[in-house]
Amino acid sequence: MNNYYSITIIGAGRVAWHLSRHLETAGHHICEIWSPDGQSAQQLADRLYEATSTDQLNFEHSEAELFLLAVPDDAIRQIATKLVLPEGTVLAHTSGSKGIDLLTDLPYVAGVFYPLQTFSKEKEVDFRQIPVLIEGETPEATQLLKDIASSLSKKVQYATSEQRKTLHLAAVFACNFTNHLLTIASNILETDELDFKLLHPLINETIQKALHLGPDLAQTGPAIRRDIGTMRAHLESLSDNPELAGIYRLLSESIMERKLQ
Amino acid sequence: MNNYYSITIIGAGRVAWHLSRHLETAGHHICEIWSPDGQSAQQLADRLYEATSTDQLNFEHSEAELFLLAVPDDAIRQIATKLVLPEGTVLAHTSGSKGIDLLTDLPYVAGVFYPLQTFSKEKEVDFRQIPVLIEGETPEATQLLKDIASSLSKKVQYATSEQRKTLHLAAVFACNFTNHLLTIASNILETDELDFKLLHPLINETIQKALHLGPDLAQTGPAIRRDIGTMRAHLESLSDNPELAGIYRLLSESIMERKLQ
Repeated sequence: MNNYYSITIIGAGRVAWHLSRHLETAGHHICEIWSPDGQSAQQLADRLYEATSTDQLNFEHSEAELFLLAVPDDAIRQIATKLVLPEGTVLAHTSGSKGIDLLTDLPYVAGVFYPLQTFSKEKEVDFRQIPVLIEGETPEATQLLKDIASSLSKKVQYATSEQRKTLHLAAVFACNFTNHLLTIASNILETDELDFKLLHPLINETIQKALHLGPDLAQTGPAIRRDIGTMRAHLESLSDNPELAGIYRLLSESIMERKLQ
Repeated sequence: MNNYYSITIIGAGRVAWHLSRHLETAGHHICEIWSPDGQSAQQLADRLYEATSTDQLNFEHSEAELFLLAVPDDAIRQIATKLVLPEGTVLAHTSGSKGIDLLTDLPYVAGVFYPLQTFSKEKEVDFRQIPVLIEGETPEATQLLKDIASSLSKKVQYATSEQRKTLHLAAVFACNFTNHLLTIASNILETDELDFKLLHPLINETIQKALHLGPDLAQTGPAIRRDIGTMRAHLESLSDNPELAGIYRLLSESIMERKLQ
């Protein structure tokens, strides 16, 4: 059921980099790549088959059936309003945290095409495993985005802008905050000349257990055991660092309460 | 440089389960396995070559050169004081958070043999990759523990009781608290009928990035970008959940400050 589409990508950053190449591999045709100065667009186009690069936002004569806005969240609106596209073209942004309403007042058909992953230019990803959340202003736009997403990934799902916001908030807890706890752990180890690598196997196993069992069942540690003695000793050893002691106390209490909704 | 030793294991829980089998595979001889009722010791002994099981703590006539106490932290002292061993035998506990001093007043040679990993009975682990932290009351005991640990793992390291306490505290942040953040994320998703599995690839990638780059360099998200607008919107959507809002605020401030020591 794969149909091949002509697609133009506005942006040449990490998301554009991965999307364009995977879209080509899936059989689609990348028409144009845009970047503000044209240079990074050129670099990306050089790695594609027939794409041309540009720093102009006038695409009146483009053949593309879909325009993907892969630019920073704060630039979406500004660039979208400067675009000149054939009327009725589908214009989708690729942001997790921005609503479709950022684009609905423009004379195009709005959409969202959000690959739920963090990308690095240096590292290949298995796109088949990446959830892609799509939303279209019209049923036809939704279907177009779904067709294209399904050619890249096994995990395509319709999600409203509201649901994407919820996902983004959850990801801040699960990823950004989690990473920060690893930084704290690494800093704690440094104070005693211990290498953070010592914790790598335990961290890996903890995460794998959380993903397999579900994190609620996988919880271990002094707080869930209500081991007051150990928690008191930990707080004592953090007594010269009120910031970390505060985080320790709040998260331990939250684990002990488990009244999350 | 592998020497083979005779070892008795006090305990038949998850740590005993993994340790005994890996010790045998490395060529050592497991003499006895003890458990309070003798039953789980029997189950474990059945899976070993020649080990006998017991519920008695008198090992006067044991051939073992090392006794490993693989029992819950709170039971170490109580069981150790009831043990009857040939005088001068090395007796090591396997706890990360307890000091060697728990055993030094007994008429044996004290030690610690701490494999830094979380074990499940159902799941095999690659013991070669698990850091083992050792500490001995005498240089000879340290050497014995080091020899045995090195026959199991590539990552053997001497660590003082103080350093192990630091490691344990760091692990609470890196593992217990991290797992709790995943629970919170999963609960947030439930409120909008979203599957936690959607976040699995992003979580995996986040952790791998943190371990490869180091978490301080890998930090992303609204707080490190000082994206006040997004943080305010997130706090607003958490306004009916003061507990989560509190955690959000504290961790975001901590990321923004980055004055961790």
